[in-house]
Amino acid sequence: MAANMKPVLYSYFRSTCSWRVRIALALKGIEYEYRAVHLLKDGGEQLADSYKAINPQCEVPTLLIDGHTLTQSMAIVEYLDETQGPPYLLPRDDPHRRQQVRAVSQCVACGIQPIQNLRVLKFVGDEKKAEWGKHWIELGFNSLEKLLETTAGKYSVGDEVTMADLMVLPQVYNANRFKVDMSAYPTITRIEAALSELEAFKKAHPTQQPDCPPELK
Amino acid sequence: MAANMKPVLYSYFRSTCSWRVRIALALKGIEYEYRAVHLLKDGGEQLADSYKAINPQCEVPTLLIDGHTLTQSMAIVEYLDETQGPPYLLPRDDPHRRQQVRAVSQCVACGIQPIQNLRVLKFVGDEKKAEWGKHWIELGFNSLEKLLETTAGKYSVGDEVTMADLMVLPQVYNANRFKVDMSAYPTITRIEAALSELEAFKKAHPTQQPDCPPELK
Repeated sequence: MAANMKPVLYSYFRSTCSWRVRIALALKGIEYEYRAVHLLKDGGEQLADSYKAINPQCEVPTLLIDGHTLTQSMAIVEYLDETQGPPYLLPRDDPHRRQQVRAVSQCVACGIQPIQNLRVLKFVGDEKKAEWGKHWIELGFNSLEKLLETTAGKYSVGDEVTMADLMVLPQVYNANRFKVDMSAYPTITRIEAALSELEAFKKAHPTQQPDCPPELK
Repeated sequence: MAANMKPVLYSYFRSTCSWRVRIALALKGIEYEYRAVHLLKDGGEQLADSYKAINPQCEVPTLLIDGHTLTQSMAIVEYLDETQGPPYLLPRDDPHRRQQVRAVSQCVACGIQPIQNLRVLKFVGDEKKAEWGKHWIELGFNSLEKLLETTAGKYSVGDEVTMADLMVLPQVYNANRFKVDMSAYPTITRIEAALSELEAFKKAHPTQQPDCPPELK
């Protein structure tokens, strides 16, 4: 791709990893072209040769920007933060605070999401997947709640929106899908409510994406 | 803890996440006190109240340094890289290169390790855990191999050791434990061989840790 072309995001409306990047793009006011990759249709469009040529990892999101093809949602968010303007999603002047932002982010992105994502649920099977997803999100949220008790202000780390919030909010959506009792997690619940008020988070929501089926809107 | 006390690493010899931090500490020449947390003994020492008070996420590693209690291995490595001296594990002057280092790191730390770690294997059960671990490592290595084809030089990203190498090498150890046929992954195999020659990687190896049982040395 040419370095000066409009960024392109390969995304699936309900993919929490795509959602994280959509929030970052919205917060920073970056216009982009949305290209839907349906993770279920025809066995998964992410496995088609045409997509594999773009992202051999066969995952969403992929972001084309500045002449580069970028994968892995947290790594994309940090790239955007380092190359684009404010608001900054990692505190610029405090390594300990940055460590907290990354630790909360990874509590979700390494500790919860990977164990309950679509490909793992498919492998676990229709019969067991509801119980499986609920179990791992609850276990993960037990950790996340305790971690947030030590880091949170208005949002996940302090009173400014950070990368950590981009991980936390979509995971709550999944928790609700798996019928997790959120009353056990007052800090997560409070942060999710505060984030849901923000325009960028509304704009990035699955129901606002072009590939969201009308019946889910 | 006092800010000037010697760093303390809570670690388990065979935990790949602890191992990543051990490599970073060894590369940077940081002396530390090793405190073993046995993940299997008595149902898991990481679940004991005494450890929960230090790390409520009940995971290793935890690093006490500069008066802070740090969790999540990648976030710890980035903190060390930002606050300690060289060698630097993320390229300082190139955001795209940093993105590649983080993407390779996350291909392992989000895409492979979490699905085959100890607590997931325990939940899957003794009967199925060998097949489960092998399946997810192979699937993950299919992605990792293709990603490394686009980023690797002598090591995972270019010709210098980066954070990505700290994720890749321990994962190969797990692949061998799960009897993954590594001949399918020539790039990963080549990088692992090059890394294994380095003193810091030798020093951080499970067999060199004080809690490694004599029969595994």
